[in-house]
Amino acid sequence: MATEISTLGEFGLIKHLTETIQLKNPESRHGIGDDCAVLSYGADKDILVTTDLLMEGVHFDLTYMPMKHLGYKAAQVNLSDIYAMGGTPKQITVSLALSKRFNVEDLEDFYEGLRLACEAHSVDIVGGDTTPSRTGFAISITAIGEVEKGKAIYRNGAKETDLICVSGDLGAAYMGFQLLEREKEVYYKQIETAKTDTERLAISQPDFSGREYLLERQMKPEARRDIIQRLLEAGIQPTAMMDISDGLSSELLHICTQSHCGCRIYEERIPIDYQTAVMAEELNMNLTTAALNGGEDYELLFTVPITDHEKVELLEDVKLIGHITKPELGCALITRDGTEFELKAQGWNPLKNGK
Amino acid sequence: MATEISTLGEFGLIKHLTETIQLKNPESRHGIGDDCAVLSYGADKDILVTTDLLMEGVHFDLTYMPMKHLGYKAAQVNLSDIYAMGGTPKQITVSLALSKRFNVEDLEDFYEGLRLACEAHSVDIVGGDTTPSRTGFAISITAIGEVEKGKAIYRNGAKETDLICVSGDLGAAYMGFQLLEREKEVYYKQIETAKTDTERLAISQPDFSGREYLLERQMKPEARRDIIQRLLEAGIQPTAMMDISDGLSSELLHICTQSHCGCRIYEERIPIDYQTAVMAEELNMNLTTAALNGGEDYELLFTVPITDHEKVELLEDVKLIGHITKPELGCALITRDGTEFELKAQGWNPLKNGK
Repeated sequence: MATEISTLGEFGLIKHLTETIQLKNPESRHGIGDDCAVLSYGADKDILVTTDLLMEGVHFDLTYMPMKHLGYKAAQVNLSDIYAMGGTPKQITVSLALSKRFNVEDLEDFYEGLRLACEAHSVDIVGGDTTPSRTGFAISITAIGEVEKGKAIYRNGAKETDLICVSGDLGAAYMGFQLLEREKEVYYKQIETAKTDTERLAISQPDFSGREYLLERQMKPEARRDIIQRLLEAGIQPTAMMDISDGLSSELLHICTQSHCGCRIYEERIPIDYQTAVMAEELNMNLTTAALNGGEDYELLFTVPITDHEKVELLEDVKLIGHITKPELGCALITRDGTEFELKAQGWNPLKNGK
Repeated sequence: MATEISTLGEFGLIKHLTETIQLKNPESRHGIGDDCAVLSYGADKDILVTTDLLMEGVHFDLTYMPMKHLGYKAAQVNLSDIYAMGGTPKQITVSLALSKRFNVEDLEDFYEGLRLACEAHSVDIVGGDTTPSRTGFAISITAIGEVEKGKAIYRNGAKETDLICVSGDLGAAYMGFQLLEREKEVYYKQIETAKTDTERLAISQPDFSGREYLLERQMKPEARRDIIQRLLEAGIQPTAMMDISDGLSSELLHICTQSHCGCRIYEERIPIDYQTAVMAEELNMNLTTAALNGGEDYELLFTVPITDHEKVELLEDVKLIGHITKPELGCALITRDGTEFELKAQGWNPLKNGK
């Protein structure tokens, strides 16, 4: 009697394993189901905890990802989860599992990236550990932060008529990933067919000019501390929030499911960078699909009461893309020509979904 | 210019990577170098955080470790780190990386073990996550706990004349590991030589009778919450403490290095179970070496002021094994015949040390 994991899917599996878990300690305010757990140890502040396990060959590819960038990204991805609850990150712990092919200099590079990210966000590295691995490289980071008591922003607070907002632009990290994967294939083909040393030396390095933004978004994401600060300054308290790691569609469906509501978002309002559009055309991919389902944007998706409409319009680098509806109306994208399409969570990662 | 990691060793590597890290946030009270990080968010309590990354083939062997026991042990190992700071664990988060060979029932078993351990220690599972793995199974657990403000027990507080104490008995988990490894080899040899189905069916299961304690210590360790409670009830505040995961020698050297002191421990006082002794004899291993360097005991090693001598003598399941000295005297074991041997950190895990 063996049930394959694919029958439940990643989110289904974790729901299946954890749905009967009950929190018993008064210090455990909120458990599984958001970007962070929320703990209540003190009188003024709540504590946020989030953890991520990144595996070589699934979450990163060392053939084109330099160790320094990997360290930087691994930290940013976790800090992003703290911001996604409206909090301020303060500490991280880092555990690494290393196979024999790594040397001390590789690890120095990784730590340099980690430190750069931590310095940019005033975060301390309070725990570090390494362990051997028989197989690939594994990275486990836990981030800890704080938020004013009772002010953590969950996924379940969106209400009918709330406005749906997103920071930055979407789909660029996914296009960066596609670009790197394509160039990797080209490179390996050249290696295979080169017969002499001269031919091998003549193998061209890929030219990424005009695509720098896509690479940066893929290899050097920035957790949106600035957006959290701007929301605070503008006196806006989002009703629901999360960061976009698996694609806008998937995340918006999480918010709608947990808030028991529907939504309408407008294709023409989805923020997309010029380089993303050019790359999608070159790869013959649907641009909107890439922006909806391409992951690793690490932008913030949040909802605000409609009364904050004017305040939100003034926020730099934040775009209003739609609104929350009654649950009966479901979740839909309105295309440029006015057609409604049901939103589906396709997710971004071909490995993750076994496609 | 590539420096092999083995030139630094595991502890040397992490020291090299992290020794220049400075803590800047007032909430970061204590960082790398103890069983937990200590965070100061509230007025009355400090928060303890510890994290562990367990890799298949390095930290556990699924050929003889059932998933339920693995879940149980993975939780206990982390809770043990919270107790080792004198704290009370309250929450854990769990991230799992899974290859395709696992099914839903495997994960249910793992979670059942996790829950049993958490219930026994009144701990909530507040974060759970699964991710695919291209290679083996990886488990990352973060435990969070609390301790009265300023009362966390570090490794650096041992003072000259302090008494050295240890809970439970040592070396049994290591003997359990040796036993399981031996039986695994026997089993595989039988499989190899069996030519017919009848021969294969006749392969005997190992008989572990009389060795139950060794298996239990290896496969079902118990974090010593009871010892922390007894210390509290007896009004004893240890000056230094840690849990024994890499072997008594290794841990005692950590305490002495960080406390800038030496030590003397007495061979005849090291607590060893009868089954451990029988197994060591059978395997032709030196019993004291096994007790000093065999790991995974998850017992508590601590030092107390000599004025607590009588109180400590009365503590159930705690043994006084030696005392702290001036640093010039170094760290030594006194054998039954009065000879002094310098303590060395050999560590327990043959894989870990690349032996």
